[in-house]
Order: sequence, then structure tokens, then C-alpha cells
Amino acid sequence: MKLAVVGGGSTYTPELIDGFARLRDTLPISELVLVDPAADRLELVGGLARRIFAKQGHSGTIVTTSDVDAGVADADAVLLQLRVGGQAARLQDETWPLECGCVGQETTGAGGLAKALRTVPVVLDIAERVRRTNPDAWIIDFTNPVGIVTRALLQAGHKAVGLCNVAIGFQRRFAALLDVAPSEVHLDHVGLNHLTWETGVRIGGPEGENLLPRLLAEHGGSIADSLSLPRPLIDRLGVVPSYYLRYFYAHDEVVRELGTKPSRAAEVAAMEKELLAMYGDPALDTKPELLAKRGGAFYSEAAVDLAAALLSGGGSPYQVVNTVNNGTRPFLPDDAVIEVQAAVGRQGAAPLAVPAVDPLYAGLIANVTAYEDLALQAALHGGRDRVFKALLSHPLVGQYEYAEALTDKLIAHNREHLAWA
Amino acid sequence: MKLAVVGGGSTYTPELIDGFARLRDTLPISELVLVDPAADRLELVGGLARRIFAKQGHSGTIVTTSDVDAGVADADAVLLQLRVGGQAARLQDETWPLECGCVGQETTGAGGLAKALRTVPVVLDIAERVRRTNPDAWIIDFTNPVGIVTRALLQAGHKAVGLCNVAIGFQRRFAALLDVAPSEVHLDHVGLNHLTWETGVRIGGPEGENLLPRLLAEHGGSIADSLSLPRPLIDRLGVVPSYYLRYFYAHDEVVRELGTKPSRAAEVAAMEKELLAMYGDPALDTKPELLAKRGGAFYSEAAVDLAAALLSGGGSPYQVVNTVNNGTRPFLPDDAVIEVQAAVGRQGAAPLAVPAVDPLYAGLIANVTAYEDLALQAALHGGRDRVFKALLSHPLVGQYEYAEALTDKLIAHNREHLAWA
Amino acid sequence: MKLAVVGGGSTYTPELIDGFARLRDTLPISELVLVDPAADRLELVGGLARRIFAKQGHSGTIVTTSDVDAGVADADAVLLQLRVGGQAARLQDETWPLECGCVGQETTGAGGLAKALRTVPVVLDIAERVRRTNPDAWIIDFTNPVGIVTRALLQAGHKAVGLCNVAIGFQRRFAALLDVAPSEVHLDHVGLNHLTWETGVRIGGPEGENLLPRLLAEHGGSIADSLSLPRPLIDRLGVVPSYYLRYFYAHDEVVRELGTKPSRAAEVAAMEKELLAMYGDPALDTKPELLAKRGGAFYSEAAVDLAAALLSGGGSPYQVVNTVNNGTRPFLPDDAVIEVQAAVGRQGAAPLAVPAVDPLYAGLIANVTAYEDLALQAALHGGRDRVFKALLSHPLVGQYEYAEALTDKLIAHNREHLAWA
Amino acid sequence: MKLAVVGGGSTYTPELIDGFARLRDTLPISELVLVDPAADRLELVGGLARRIFAKQGHSGTIVTTSDVDAGVADADAVLLQLRVGGQAARLQDETWPLECGCVGQETTGAGGLAKALRTVPVVLDIAERVRRTNPDAWIIDFTNPVGIVTRALLQAGHKAVGLCNVAIGFQRRFAALLDVAPSEVHLDHVGLNHLTWETGVRIGGPEGENLLPRLLAEHGGSIADSLSLPRPLIDRLGVVPSYYLRYFYAHDEVVRELGTKPSRAAEVAAMEKELLAMYGDPALDTKPELLAKRGGAFYSEAAVDLAAALLSGGGSPYQVVNTVNNGTRPFLPDDAVIEVQAAVGRQGAAPLAVPAVDPLYAGLIANVTAYEDLALQAALHGGRDRVFKALLSHPLVGQYEYAEALTDKLIAHNREHLAWA
Repeated sequence: MKLAVVGGGSTYTPELIDGFARLRDTLPISELVLVDPAADRLELVGGLARRIFAKQGHSGTIVTTSDVDAGVADADAVLLQLRVGGQAARLQDETWPLECGCVGQETTGAGGLAKALRTVPVVLDIAERVRRTNPDAWIIDFTNPVGIVTRALLQAGHKAVGLCNVAIGFQRRFAALLDVAPSEVHLDHVGLNHLTWETGVRIGGPEGENLLPRLLAEHGGSIADSLSLPRPLIDRLGVVPSYYLRYFYAHDEVVRELGTKPSRAAEVAAMEKELLAMYGDPALDTKPELLAKRGGAFYSEAAVDLAAALLSGGGSPYQVVNTVNNGTRPFLPDDAVIEVQAAVGRQGAAPLAVPAVDPLYAGLIANVTAYEDLALQAALHGGRDRVFKALLSHPLVGQYEYAEALTDKLIAHNREHLAWA
Repeated sequence: MKLAVVGGGSTYTPELIDGFARLRDTLPISELVLVDPAADRLELVGGLARRIFAKQGHSGTIVTTSDVDAGVADADAVLLQLRVGGQAARLQDETWPLECGCVGQETTGAGGLAKALRTVPVVLDIAERVRRTNPDAWIIDFTNPVGIVTRALLQAGHKAVGLCNVAIGFQRRFAALLDVAPSEVHLDHVGLNHLTWETGVRIGGPEGENLLPRLLAEHGGSIADSLSLPRPLIDRLGVVPSYYLRYFYAHDEVVRELGTKPSRAAEVAAMEKELLAMYGDPALDTKPELLAKRGGAFYSEAAVDLAAALLSGGGSPYQVVNTVNNGTRPFLPDDAVIEVQAAVGRQGAAPLAVPAVDPLYAGLIANVTAYEDLALQAALHGGRDRVFKALLSHPLVGQYEYAEALTDKLIAHNREHLAWA
Repeated sequence: MKLAVVGGGSTYTPELIDGFARLRDTLPISELVLVDPAADRLELVGGLARRIFAKQGHSGTIVTTSDVDAGVADADAVLLQLRVGGQAARLQDETWPLECGCVGQETTGAGGLAKALRTVPVVLDIAERVRRTNPDAWIIDFTNPVGIVTRALLQAGHKAVGLCNVAIGFQRRFAALLDVAPSEVHLDHVGLNHLTWETGVRIGGPEGENLLPRLLAEHGGSIADSLSLPRPLIDRLGVVPSYYLRYFYAHDEVVRELGTKPSRAAEVAAMEKELLAMYGDPALDTKPELLAKRGGAFYSEAAVDLAAALLSGGGSPYQVVNTVNNGTRPFLPDDAVIEVQAAVGRQGAAPLAVPAVDPLYAGLIANVTAYEDLALQAALHGGRDRVFKALLSHPLVGQYEYAEALTDKLIAHNREHLAWA
Repeated sequence: MKLAVVGGGSTYTPELIDGFARLRDTLPISELVLVDPAADRLELVGGLARRIFAKQGHSGTIVTTSDVDAGVADADAVLLQLRVGGQAARLQDETWPLECGCVGQETTGAGGLAKALRTVPVVLDIAERVRRTNPDAWIIDFTNPVGIVTRALLQAGHKAVGLCNVAIGFQRRFAALLDVAPSEVHLDHVGLNHLTWETGVRIGGPEGENLLPRLLAEHGGSIADSLSLPRPLIDRLGVVPSYYLRYFYAHDEVVRELGTKPSRAAEVAAMEKELLAMYGDPALDTKPELLAKRGGAFYSEAAVDLAAALLSGGGSPYQVVNTVNNGTRPFLPDDAVIEVQAAVGRQGAAPLAVPAVDPLYAGLIANVTAYEDLALQAALHGGRDRVFKALLSHPLVGQYEYAEALTDKLIAHNREHLAWA
């Protein structure tokens, strides 16, 4: 079994490698290719990756290359975890929207649109190269914004599934609070990537008892704290929104924070510098502690679990993935991509039947789905007008003068990544 | 043919009376009952109404009463144009939301919710009285927020249609610009009450040529000016949003304006005082010029046209009304109320088939529909939590801390009108 | 010795009475007149006042009257603690400025100006009545805004001193932290009423060692917390701003809080209702615990101390008072009123010599002094233009469109209290 | 007579050259040295300068050099018009303050402080070099922020006068409106550099009749428009504020504009590129039309007039300059720098006696003077704390959280220009 990781030079990668090593029984990899244009960085990460495999007695080969075609050739699955423009582009995404009072963030709002515009063409090009050599290979997308990128892949006819670590994070946290094994916890997970609510927490599977009311009664405070959301909001809703809902439910507070605090991109950039220095140490053969602060907790578990299901029918039977709606949510277009519990296996991901969604969530989901449609059109076909319309449709923008200004700023700050600009 | 007008003491009413007089061939009324709890005011308005009928040679009787049951007895149709709490409540609706930076307006946002909460129980009570004496009578609702009030009436099983003057206003304006008779102009009218876009302007009927592109090219500037929207927005969209979209597309600008200008309610209150003084003049037997500034242009034309269709099958064959969705817009719940071109007649209003809606509008329509659902639940069942959820779901609120604060303010300012508070 | 308290029907008064009783050796009163137009309320407060005197064995007489002339006749000193318009006017002061994003507070900003405009003419009228019968009586002003009111009194030639409890509060708090007697603590107190900084805390008097650096090092956190100011701000400044500086240093945060929290006026109104109910209980003969939450801590101590000094040369030799600048601060006009440590005695209050003020404070002090000058002109002479200029000059307003809007709102909400409006 | 222009490579310079040529009788220059580190740019500008002199028959020599010491040697006067960090730094000054809702501008607010911090050390170094070779030479500072830079020069004992084109601009505009020669117009000019009000417009000199009321009555609308200030503000004040007061009187409006419009720096950068391309054309021997849009109108007239007065006792007897206060404004420190009408001659600039300033202006002037003092301390001695205090004291900042955030941003964006950072 051969896997390719595009963006393998990421400082994230040792987390993934550690997962592959720990979970080798679930997903027995014989060859792992790390693909990245940044050759220097790739060598540092690749060296540590090999030492981790060696230390943990994993017999698989780790190959590094900057040649995408060579890297993905004959791979059974290709994992996408790239970042077009790097942390520098992210810093931009987090900054210029603030100039007109809008949230600056790399997966939602104007910053998220910028990232989508930079990323979709690059991902589609890679997917096309994969299809050329391995028409049967799965493409697992962890590249943000996962919803839009997965929708782009599926509309272009690729065998793709979108992956996010939000759900697995909740699963692990709730398992700890309930003192059960994570695999015992089944979430009723509603919404779109980075726009989700856990509306039920069940033990044993989709038919298990819903323990969410008990969890909220006993641990509502700590859950709210971990999401930086106010406890009374969680109590009133009676469900657990993802951390990313904070950009909606507390938009203006976040804008004030972002305007008066160092940016996340700057923090991550500093952390990456430090991590790369560590990775260069030939004595290091485990993932460093610091990596835990880099974000992406449980990403490797989620990736291994999904790859195992898609490639061998192993892994967990139900997993939260991003896949095509096809009537699962009747109020959304069939070709929308939703984030949903699905039965996963060699044939792909089939969403579980779900109860109706409370209008309190459905309204916002429908609104953001419409944005994602317009965002994808802008990413595929370019043009100032399409960018403007996507921004005007976004619930965190919505106003004419901001949509105009943000369109100008988005284009000015991303010109080198936009073929049409 | 007998009509009752609940809220007949409104300063609006002479506009309506003038229409009934001018259009008596379309809608031959034998008795018109003006119902209003404010007896003094009703006498002033009723007196002028009788003088207008007399002057124009209308043979119908005009009755005034403060007793709803007596007033609506045996009426073939009941027109609702009431304002619970009067201009004083409206002034509140326009003011307290500004305290936390949200738009203050009586049909949308937090102010609109306040009005819905005050109005729905009163309207349902009146409708119940109508049904008791005339189960076949039509209820025509012109009381705002028309979408929510009509939804409340329909869900309670009443024979109701919602009426608004936005569409007829565009029809008249476009007819003038195109130099054709108003009846020649057919609008492709998309959305919800006070959340609509004219996406097509056709001559002769639903199959006529779409002249909107030409209209925008030739008159885009004056159309934009009349809506206080920027010309480039209209050009980019290629459709004509209603004036009320300004609260969305220019929310922050409007908040600044409202915070730094006299309120509309204060203006209207001053105008009403002046109008009532005029109405008391026994020499006055026409509607005064000043009434044109009161708002509600062409309301009487729209009301006569709709009543004629419902009661006698006369009037225009297609009219823009508020009625139940029932699959017309597949992305909205069947029981949502939409504002739409419909074939109207004795059997009621049947929406015309419509093309798919651009996601740029569909997202916002879906979001506001979800709000209207939650708003209606709050109006019917009360409770702080339901008010909070309706506010949180509204695209002009959306944030936790504002939803909390606005909930408190809404309740504090409307306690006397809310049975449960 | 006879004292009159104008506004004696305040729920505050039992605090004052308790002080007069406890500190009767310092200030031996034979007759105390409580003057208040609200006769009902005055009876409740007066009854409790008599029971407190009785319980504590104070032999003085307590008289209640609604007739100002009768009340102040032959008084040696008149204490002013009135509130024109009551808590209802305060609620207004705290609310309408928020509509355009400005702080709503009853002693500073637009709300403070409203209070000044309501209060100055009333106070000057009372002072004139005092002067007519007792040209030698001292007027002690505790009515806010103390700086402007005192300036008005002094410019009209009255024997007046302005009193505030901010300094005595700091003295008591610092004494507790330093574990010394309050009378041992001498403050270097810089600024204007409600715009002050403690720049030194000395033991034993003006020449004592400055312990402020030690206090901040050891208790900076709790001091900052008690002022709702961030610890790092206190640390950077190295001085202790009064709580009222929060309206400047954290203006936007305060506006958000005020827009999303119940108003202080509403809290106080509820508390007053409860207090008055208690006062009516004939068994109550001490000030209730609840009164401590009403604000005005140590007000009675400060009032007794000041009255003792002015009337008998007793009390503390140095006290913080509001009095005329006369060159004490060379960068301010001679006729400005400053809040300053002064040697107090029968002859009045003579400011102590003070070191130069850091520009970080002097700039703001000069700006607010200019505002107070314009505010007083508006209070004395009225007119929309003078109100506008005062608002434009206030550092918390400063912008044209807000000054215009606030002028309109101020006049609309205070018309009944403004003779010229 | 020899003049050196430091920053002579500016695209401005042809404007200055044109003035030297036109006004050679007033200021007969024999040698003009253009000093600039940017040699390429200097050649383009120098070439055009020589062609302008030649075309207009000016016999003076024009020398270009990148060596400051060589350039200023033996000069009778040195004109400073440099921009440390160029348009790129300006773009920064105009952008990052917006991230926390504060105005971004290169002469006031946080951006102005950044410019002061970058500029003061460079200017002091140049002035020191001038003094070393020509202790009698005058330094004329046109480099912004002129108030702070001039204060720095004077405090270091240099023979310096600060120059701005705001007053001469008003003089020319009012002369045109009054249809008199500019030299006939005498302004009562009150305030600090970029914080001034014209409180009187007199014909013939300081004792002439004040025509400002007539000017405002007849031309108030066009004057207001040219300043982008609302007409009613001008009418209410009865004086004419400078354009820069807009950052105070309309701060939030400006922030919205800046956040939603292209930056001035970007416009100027584009214009400079175009201008330099023109300057390279050997056929060009006049200043191009486009230069008029570059800003700085009448700068050359003002510079020639001031240099003539200082060097030969010629030019206008009264000129508006930036010079030391020394008691002219008693409410400001003696060592503050004010912008004022002064009698100018070989001995320097002596402020004319002036009437008292209305508190409406005095409060703001005092506040900004305090800021300028703290800004200069930060520029001279560096350190995060001094930057923070200067920002906290600025009326356009004033709040703790913004002062903290702006301090961080200022340092992060200007690190390469700040020796201590």
C-alpha cells in the first residue's frame, strides 16, 4: 500500500507520521511519499519522519520528492495538506479584512475566500495529475477550506473525500468526559465544514442514548471555555457549536481581539521556525511536545481511520467526512458538500440518514452553502464580479461597501496567486 | 359587497377610501366598515371618508365602530392595517436596537421582531372573530411584518393573503420609465416580504420580453437613487432590490444615519398630527397632498385589485402576494410564506412557476425564512428563549451578545404588549 | 450649629445621618434640616433619620420640609445633594448617548452635560436663596457634576466648596492595604472632579515618603480589579487613575458593556424602591446593609470632615476639595475649578503647592477643563449652539456628526428641564 | 547665496525649482544643491531641474549629490523635505492603524507618531552636520510632522524654523474669493501644525478689517466642500479649520473611508512612478501638470518667501511659521512649538501678539501639545513605554487597548527604522 502526502514538508507531518507508525495495524503502509516544492524543508521533515518510523519499528519506506507527478504515481491514496502561499499568505488573510472591520481568518469570511481562490486551481491541477496515473486512487483533502475544495474536486469528477479534525476532537474530548473509549462515542454532527454543531452525543452508535444533555449539565462550563464561547450560549442552544462558530456568534468581539492581539499566523510562523530547527537535530526521533500547540490535534488518527476505510474497508464504520449532499439535507442543493456522519468503506462515504435541522442552524447553513457555491465559481472562473458576489453573499460580510473594499484588497494582496488578476 | 377595515382609524385610510371611490367599477362596495379602538381618531377619519365618497358620487355606506365583532360581521373581506402600540411603539422599535449597534426598524431586525410579537396575537384574535361569523370571508393582511403575520394566519387555518405595496410601486415606476400602462408591466419578483429582488421586467405578461437590462442601462442611476442604494451595486447585481434590502446591504451606514438623524416614527407622528387636524376640517373632501409623504403609495390600488380578484374574480389576473410556499421555492419549507407573482381569483392565490434563484439571493432568503419561523414560534408561544433564538438567527443580529441584549431590551420596551412577559 | 441638606429625601441620607451621629464630636450639630420637594419620600427618610439619632443618643433635632427658603434659613452650612429629574433622568442620561456609540453616563460625556444643564440653574437658585438669608453660610456641593456646579457657584460669588468621595475612598483603601489609620494617609491627588489620578501616597502628610510604588508592586492587581482597569495600564502609568478614567481609557469597551447590560440607573432605581420600603419600617433604627451598594461610600465621613473644617476649624487639616484654580495649575485658567488637596479651615480651602503634572495627564485635564468652561456657558445661557460646542469640545465626543446628533437628543430628552428649549 | 535641499530627489522638487526660477528676484540663488541618497532618482529630478532653470533663464547652478556633508557645506540655508522609509513606510502608516479602528494617516494619530519616530533621529543627524560646517545656516523644516520635528531641532539648539503650506493655501484661496492680491490677505492663524483654525481674514495686515464673516456668508459652502467638512460645522464654528481637523471632527467617517478606499500612499506612489518617467524625458523643461495633484500646492512660494526673509530680510514681513511658544499661548509650555503669524527677518521669527483662544480650540490644542511632548520624548529616547504613553495621550487614540495594540504594530512595522527596537 502506497500513500502520497502532498504538502508533506509541512511542520505538521511528524504528527501524521507518528499516527501512521502507531496505527500501522489499521493501515499497513509499505511506502509513504512526502511531496513538497520546498526541498530544504522537505529534507528536514523527511529525515525526522524516517527516524520516527525507525524508532517505532515501522518497516515502511519514506520517500521525499518535489516532483508531484513522480510522487503520486501508483499511490493508492493521496492526502492533500498544502498551503498555497504559506504562512505569509495566511498572515495577509488574517490582516487586511480587519481594515474594514471584518474578521480576518484563513478559513471563513474574506480571508477564507482568498484562501479558496488561491487553493482550488492548485488542488485541481494535482488531482488531475493523480487521475492521469491512478484513476482509482482516493484523494483525501485536508486542505482548507475543506468544504469548497472538496466540492471543487467532486464537481470535477474526482474520487475525493474531505477530512477535518473538528469532529474527532469532540469525540475524544467527550469520551474523556464520559470516561469511555473514543470509539464508543458517536456524534450527531450537523452542518458544513467549519460550520457545525454537535446536536447529539451517543454511546455505541447512531441508535445509542443521547448523553449530550447530561454532558452539558455536568461539563457545560469547561466545554464553553474550551471553545471561547459564553456558557449561557451553549446552555440556551443545548448543542455544542464548533470553535469556528465563534466567528459568527461573536464576530465583533473577535474583530476587536484580532485588531489588538498578535496574529495566529505570526505565532504559527514562529513555532514553525522553532520546529524546523528541532527537526534538523539527528538525535530527535519522536514528535516534539511543541507540535501539540501547532493545531491539528488528532489529525493523524482521523487520516489513518479514513484512509483505512477507503483503501481496505478497515477503520471505524462511521466517520465524519465532507461529501456530496445528494438529498441528505433537503434544503440544500444536491451538489453541495456537507460535513456529515457517513458509512465509509471501499466504495466511499454514504451519509447516514439524519433528522431535520432546527431552523436556528438551517438558516445559517443554507446561507453559507450559497456562499460556497459562489466562492467556487469565483475560484474556477475568476473575475472581480464573482469575487464581489461571493463576498456580498457571505453572512460575515453581507454589506455592499465592505464587499467592494474587500474585493479590492483580496485581489491586491493575492495577485501573484490569481491567474486572472 | 361588504368590506371591513380593521385599523380603519389610521391616517392612511383616506388613501384607501380614495382608491375605493376611483376604482368602484373594479370593486363595487356597498358597505365599508372602519373598525378602530381609537374612537376620536376614527370619527375624524370616518368623516373625511364619507365626504370623499360623497364628493366622488360613490353610493356605498361608510360605518365606523370600535367593536371588532360588530364591525366584521357579515363582511366578505376583512382588511387588516392595524398597528399595535401605535407610533409610540414604532419609535421604540426604531431606537433601542441602536443602543447596541443594530438597525432600528419596524419591519426587520430586532424592531421587526418586536412588532411581530406585539401583532401576531392581536391579528389571530381578530381572525378568529372573523371566522366565527363569516367562515368564507377573506382576510387580507397589510399589517407588518406581512410575511410573519400571513404565516401565522395560514398556519391557524385562516383564508388569508398577505399584501404589500413594494411590487406595485416598482410596477408603476417601471411603467412610467418604459412609457407603457402599468397593467402591461409584469415583474419577476423573487423573495420574501420586504426581502425581494425584481429579477425581470416583462411587457404583457410572464412570457413577455425581459426589459430589465435595458431599464438598468438607461435609468440605473435614478433607480438606485430612489432606493438610496449605490448605483454600482445595482449594476453589479443586474437586478433591482427593494428598498428594504438597504438594511442588509448598507446596515452599518443605516445605523450611523439612524443614530444621527431624527427617527422616521417621529416624522410620521408629526405628520399624523397634522393630517388629523386637516381631516377634522368639514370642508375637506379629498385626500390631502401631504398624505403622499406618509408612505404606502399605491396601497389602495393594490388592495382594491386583490380584493376584486378574491371576491369577484375581477382585477388583474396575476398579482404579487404573500402566500404559502408549497414547493414553489424548493429550498424553503413548504409552510413558509413567500412573496410571489400568483394567479389570483375566487379560489385564492396560486404561485406561478419560477426559475431557480441565484445563490446570491437564495442564501439570504433561506436565512430570513428560518428567522421568520423562529419569530413566529416566539410570537405564538412566548418566552425569553424563543425571542433570543429568533434574534440570534436573524442575519442582521447573528451575534450572541447582541441577541442577549436585544432580547432584554425588546422585552423591557414591550412588556405591556406581551402577555407572557 | 444648624445644617440644611437640600435633597435630604435621597435614599443616601441615612448614610449621612449615620455619619453625623458617629462623628458628632467632630461636628456637633444641634439642628439638621432635610429639604426635599418629594414630601412622601422625605417623611420615610426623615423618620428613619430621627430613629438613627435616637438610637445613637444624638441630641440634635431633625426637621423635614419641602420649603427651601424655610429649610435653609439661618443654616450655618447647606449641603447640596439633589438630583434634578431623579433616577428617570439618569436613566435617560445613560441611554440615548449609546444610540450613536458614545458613552452614556451621568457625570461625564453627553449624559454628564445633560445633567449639568439640568442642575446648574436649580443649584444657583438655591444658592441665591441661601445667600439672601445667610450671607455667611457655606455651601457644600455634592451634586454632580461637582466640577461644573462648583464653578457655577464660585463664578456667581457664592461661598462654595465642592465635595467628592473618590479621594476619601482611595485614602481608606490604601490605609487598609498599608495597615495604617486613614488619617495617616495623604494623597497626591491630581486633576479635575471625576478625572483624577493619585500620583503619590504618603504617610503622615504632604512631606511623607511616597509609598505608591510599593503599593502598586504589592497590590497592583487588586487595585486594578477594583477599578475595572487592566493591571498593565496601572503598571505602565505608575499612578492610580480614578474609576471614572475608565470612561476614557476604555471608552469603547464601556459602550459595548452599557449597550449589552442593564443600566446602573435601573439597578439604583430598584435598590431605592427596596430601601424606601425598609425605611418605612418603624423598627428600623440603623442604616441597612443594602445601602452600602447604593454608592457614595465614605460620603458622610467626607462631608462631616469638610463641614467641621469650614464651620469650626476642626476636622482634618488637609482635605481634597473642588475649588478655584487661581494659578495652582498654571496651564489652566485661573477661574477653572480643580480637585486638589487643600488646607481647609474657617477661611475656606487653600490649595497646596503641587509639582508639575506629567503631559500624559495635563493634556487631558486641559481638554476637559475647556469642555467644562463651555458646558457652564451652555448651562447658564442655554441655546443649541452652546450645547453643540460643549459636546464637540468633549474628548469623549469630539466628532461633528455625534455632537450634532447628541445635541438633538440631549434637548429632546431634557426639554422639560431646560427653560430655553 | 547657496541653498541645499535635503530630500532633493523628491518628485516634489520641480515644483520648488519652478518657484526658485519664478521668484529669483525675491531670492537670488547662485547655487542649489539637491541632496538625496537615491542617486538614480536624483539624476532624473536634477536633470529636469537644470532644464527648468535653463528654460527660464536662471543663472544659478544646480548640483546633485548623495553625500550630505558635501551637499550642506557652506550652504546659507538647508531645506529639509525628506521622507524616511519612502512611500512604502507611508503606506504602512496609513494601513495598520485601521486594523483597530483608528485613523491611518502619516502626520497625525498613530501613523504620524510612527513617522515622527522614524524622522526625528535622521533630521537631528543632518542638522548636526549642518551646524558643524555652517553654524549660522538656517534650517527650514518642511518634513512632517513639522511641529514635532521643529521642536526637536529647537530643543537641540539649532537655528530652525518649521514651514507648512496650509496657511499659504488659505491665503491664496481667500485672496481669490475676495478678489485681492494674495499679499493683501492676512490670516489670524491659531494652533499647531496640522491643527489650525483661521479665526480671522484681514486685508492689509494684522489690524485690517476681519472679512471672515463675509467670506463664510458668501462662500461657506465651497470652503466647506474643499475641506470635505460639512457646511453646518463651518457655520457653527464661524472659523475655518484646516483640512487636517477632519481627522478629529470626522474621525470615524474617515476611518470608514480609509478602510474602503485605495490609500493615498498607493495613489501617490503610482503618480510618482509616472512623474519620474516624465522627468526622464530630455524634452521636458517645465513642471508637468500632473505635479499639481501630488499635493504641496504653493509650497515653493512659501519656501522662497521664508528663505528670503531669513537670509536677506526680504519676502513678506509676516509669515505663518512653526516656532517656539515662549509665552505666546500662555496655556502651553514655553518650549512647545506653535504655528503662528510671526514677524520674520534675518533674526528669525517673532510671533505676533494674539488674542485669547476660544476654549473650543484651546482644549484640543493643549491636548495635542502634550502628545507632541511625549512623542518627542519617544523619538529621542525610544522604548515601548514611551511609545505607549504618546499614543495613550493622543486624542485620536486615548484608549488603553488601542494604545497597546498600536504600540505593538508601530514597532513591528517600523523596526528597521528604530535603532532601539
